[in-house]
Amino acid sequence: MALAFGVISSSATMLTKSSLPSASSSEQSSSATTKPNGADIPNSSTTPATAPAGKVMYMAAGSGIPEIKTILSGFSIPSFLSFPVLAVKAFGAIFAVSTGMCLGKEGPFVHISTCVGYLVGMLFPKYRDNGRKMRELLSAACSSGLSVAFGAPIGGVLFSYEEISTYFPRKVLWRAFLCSLTAAMVLKELNPTGTGKLVLFETNYGTDYKPVHYLAFLLLGVAGGIFGGLFCKLNFLWSKWFRAFTIIKKNPVLEVFLVVLATALLQFPNPLTREPGDIIIKNLLVDCNDNSTSQHSSWVCRNELSDETSWPYIGYLLYGTLAKLVLTIITFGIKVPSGVIIPALDAGAFFGRLIGQLIPSISPGIFAMVGAAAFLAGVSRMTISLAVIMFELTGQLSYVVPHMLAILVAKWVADAISEEGVYDLAQTVLGHPFLDPDVAIQIVRKRKMCAEVLVPPQRTMQEITVLVPGTNKVAYTLLKEKLAKLKERGLMDAGLVLVQCHGDSSIPILQGYISQSELEFGLTRLVPATIPGQSDFQIRLLGHEVDDAPSPDALEVDLTPFVDRTPLSICAKAPLEYVVEMFSKLGLRYLCVTEEGTGRLVGVIIKKRLVGFLEHLREHNEDE
Amino acid sequence: MALAFGVISSSATMLTKSSLPSASSSEQSSSATTKPNGADIPNSSTTPATAPAGKVMYMAAGSGIPEIKTILSGFSIPSFLSFPVLAVKAFGAIFAVSTGMCLGKEGPFVHISTCVGYLVGMLFPKYRDNGRKMRELLSAACSSGLSVAFGAPIGGVLFSYEEISTYFPRKVLWRAFLCSLTAAMVLKELNPTGTGKLVLFETNYGTDYKPVHYLAFLLLGVAGGIFGGLFCKLNFLWSKWFRAFTIIKKNPVLEVFLVVLATALLQFPNPLTREPGDIIIKNLLVDCNDNSTSQHSSWVCRNELSDETSWPYIGYLLYGTLAKLVLTIITFGIKVPSGVIIPALDAGAFFGRLIGQLIPSISPGIFAMVGAAAFLAGVSRMTISLAVIMFELTGQLSYVVPHMLAILVAKWVADAISEEGVYDLAQTVLGHPFLDPDVAIQIVRKRKMCAEVLVPPQRTMQEITVLVPGTNKVAYTLLKEKLAKLKERGLMDAGLVLVQCHGDSSIPILQGYISQSELEFGLTRLVPATIPGQSDFQIRLLGHEVDDAPSPDALEVDLTPFVDRTPLSICAKAPLEYVVEMFSKLGLRYLCVTEEGTGRLVGVIIKKRLVGFLEHLREHNEDE
Repeated sequence: MALAFGVISSSATMLTKSSLPSASSSEQSSSATTKPNGADIPNSSTTPATAPAGKVMYMAAGSGIPEIKTILSGFSIPSFLSFPVLAVKAFGAIFAVSTGMCLGKEGPFVHISTCVGYLVGMLFPKYRDNGRKMRELLSAACSSGLSVAFGAPIGGVLFSYEEISTYFPRKVLWRAFLCSLTAAMVLKELNPTGTGKLVLFETNYGTDYKPVHYLAFLLLGVAGGIFGGLFCKLNFLWSKWFRAFTIIKKNPVLEVFLVVLATALLQFPNPLTREPGDIIIKNLLVDCNDNSTSQHSSWVCRNELSDETSWPYIGYLLYGTLAKLVLTIITFGIKVPSGVIIPALDAGAFFGRLIGQLIPSISPGIFAMVGAAAFLAGVSRMTISLAVIMFELTGQLSYVVPHMLAILVAKWVADAISEEGVYDLAQTVLGHPFLDPDVAIQIVRKRKMCAEVLVPPQRTMQEITVLVPGTNKVAYTLLKEKLAKLKERGLMDAGLVLVQCHGDSSIPILQGYISQSELEFGLTRLVPATIPGQSDFQIRLLGHEVDDAPSPDALEVDLTPFVDRTPLSICAKAPLEYVVEMFSKLGLRYLCVTEEGTGRLVGVIIKKRLVGFLEHLREHNEDE
Repeated sequence: MALAFGVISSSATMLTKSSLPSASSSEQSSSATTKPNGADIPNSSTTPATAPAGKVMYMAAGSGIPEIKTILSGFSIPSFLSFPVLAVKAFGAIFAVSTGMCLGKEGPFVHISTCVGYLVGMLFPKYRDNGRKMRELLSAACSSGLSVAFGAPIGGVLFSYEEISTYFPRKVLWRAFLCSLTAAMVLKELNPTGTGKLVLFETNYGTDYKPVHYLAFLLLGVAGGIFGGLFCKLNFLWSKWFRAFTIIKKNPVLEVFLVVLATALLQFPNPLTREPGDIIIKNLLVDCNDNSTSQHSSWVCRNELSDETSWPYIGYLLYGTLAKLVLTIITFGIKVPSGVIIPALDAGAFFGRLIGQLIPSISPGIFAMVGAAAFLAGVSRMTISLAVIMFELTGQLSYVVPHMLAILVAKWVADAISEEGVYDLAQTVLGHPFLDPDVAIQIVRKRKMCAEVLVPPQRTMQEITVLVPGTNKVAYTLLKEKLAKLKERGLMDAGLVLVQCHGDSSIPILQGYISQSELEFGLTRLVPATIPGQSDFQIRLLGHEVDDAPSPDALEVDLTPFVDRTPLSICAKAPLEYVVEMFSKLGLRYLCVTEEGTGRLVGVIIKKRLVGFLEHLREHNEDE
């Protein structure tokens, strides 16, 4: 609750900047870039279900990517991009990765870079006061996270486009490109790997694969899809089941201890899994036919180059695949900064190297590389960004076709097993709303519903409707009452619809919309403190009458600038898909519903209600 | 005119499939995927200003990419994707490239692959009858064109996303990915280069560039931007000026002859420009320090490895840069199949190799490669797709940072010189409408206009409004008259708005919209041929009354299924940017405008009118 109040008041502070009349019509905004108020980000807040209020540091746990997806789709998670979270995540990630657990640094890197983008953006009113511009900035910032995590500047941009951002116009594309490029240039000069190169796992297999090997790549794709799909399903079930135990729920450190213990017990016996995640990939991608020096000393090559089949080695490869799979399932989602990309690549590389043992006269490293991509495709459902990341990781362009083949097959198979990828499922676990337009439209289309299903019940509509008389003034007490009712409902992005009847007609016609936060700001900040006892204190809502001189005793306050006079509306009989498309593509936060034929206002749909309804449909859908 | 009729009748034939009442509400479609009629593509047609009616083969000329951009933004160009054009383009491209003129094969390849996609799609009702699904298919198809032209499957997908397609959701992304992958697999097996590799211009420079070399990459970016920007401006002016001469306008073959002559005269004296475009790139990208055999025999390396500076060689590099620039300016846009990518890469590679001569102890091939990318960036304004195409062309991942730097700088500089890239300018030259949302919103935002500026004049509104009485029936003769008026106006995507007054109110409220083509189909096909003389013949428009039994004498026809009962509407005072966003993002074809406060219908905006208005604003803008 303390959090929520903080949000409202910060939003109200910003509103003082937008009290110019010219700003009023751009509140609701398909064209948010012009609007000077920052209500977009701080207004609609979702507090993660698992984090007790005040325990901001909990937000540094996990990958961060699901939350960033939520934020970039137009919601806000208070404090998630603040400096304390940034600091905890940065230090936490160092220690988490150092434990050798099955977790990666790429999710945390993306979170860290997005925090930096947010904190820098907050210094400039252009971004601070404009939700959409801020989200564009964050989209660009998060691409640099992956750019430095993997030395993959282009992959970073595409990851932001394909996996994270809901809204990614061309101009964000090249800004992300610039951001990612600068990050890569700095990384190259800092040279943390000591090679002077960005490519992390450089390989050079040549191009000696034959058409028959496509079968193996196909098999790796299928296997990656099965593993990935299972991973998504099992990780989701594990999160729901294991973390429901009271002792685990109350003691996240105990959970971390248990996972570390399991990791140590399962990984140490296998010589291949003793190393950190990125070294494992490097070891598994090695080309033993390459005549450079170091390769021959590796344990992998000693086993593969020996004349007899080394059964223990093959056993360790299988063991490695399963251990990585099981450990990643129980690790992803625990309360430490943890990404899923490196462990997924590990598991896939183990399986790929294993398959490579069965195929004569071609380096098994090739299959480890393609297997890694396939597994990650199954887990994350990325396509083009993953293919590019794999090139940038391995420096290997000759394998573009095998990679694409395995990635696409893995995505298909995994989609068949578990409809959503790991990040989308994590959003569900964390309780963050997310309106994926494609999924939502598919759900809605099947059911042939109309916009009217989302119209609130008659009683609610009475509560949120204000019938403004011809004088355009309403009593202060009435609005105060309506505001109290709105607050009772607890939906922070709600508001009041203003209607008027014209002439003899008794049909209430929509005149405007005022959001809860703007109404509250108007009623608490603009009304003189001495007045509010008087019941005849008037609030202007829809502009002055033409012949109306300002009243000299100032017994009224003008809230017209806060009213959106041109809210978008839709016919009640229009297909529900129109509603979904309008919300997702135009970035709406509310949409009025009018009766077919008469134009009478019958309801208003707010974004949160739509998202909740779609969630309900989806769950209902899966039950069938 | 013959063309236009062909279009209408083909659309009407399709409408027979959609005459089910359930289909009526989905005519206008943000959700076009559900709608069973194919009106979207064939309905709104634009015939290129330069092509005399019947001369379909003219459509095989040029790059094809500007036209495909137009088609993918929701317009239609009759015959452009037909089999005859495909055949002429395929054969024409072979001969055009063989002449050695400054033109490439990648534009024609994209056109050819899009034709194939269209012809295959027409075999399936799912695509034939649904404009949006067809456009998604075409987006995927065109990615395979670049995939095979350059052996760049990922670059092809990104090119389709960044440069060509207006609408590119995630599901199109991986379909394009599949299409591009399959094309690359087939190409690899056909092995036209004889190397067994997809990579066309393989290089292997190592990573010996130093931070100081960033200055050179920056310089190449600036130069590429200047060249590219000048190219766009001069090519545009050349197209307008040279092709305005009557003799050239009437004899496109004469123009081709003159350009071939100029090409031969300018290119033959220079030993570096005698080869075809792709060989020139290969020659200029050569690494003379590489110890493999063939390099030393090349003319470039003989000159560079000699102890003294070879001034003639440097002169030829400069000559090559300028010759390619000038020839490409006069070549792009002539009436042969011609792409611009290869010549742009050539010119950039010449200049890059020239700069490379000034920089000691690093292969000048690196600068030729980066210079080529910079020049193409200046010409086309691609960013990420170009970076990926460059990797796939050269197999060189270590130069990702220099490439990105030069590309981004070139784009900025070129944007400053000429606002639009070569394809956008070519659209203007060809007279094709194109609604680029980003550009349109910028134009509109500056002017702070409202939706009402697009409301047609009172007289037009009277012509297109039908006041439907409470019986929901109107006289056949009235509609026939309105249709004739619509046809007179000559806007093929127009229609009628249906309004009704309720009770005592005299305010006409919007009831529905019927498009011209559907009205014409209804009036000409559904009305019995024997009846139309009678003036009391009635047309139902807005459904049956509840208590109304079907009249036994069938003296009326029901057009209700053709009426969109839930057209989207917007308030007249809403910012014009909302209108632009709704058209571009929701794929609207018409939008009704209502009066603020009363809900009275005051106008209807059709897409063509909006695009025309924006074009006008833009031209006016540039004059200022």
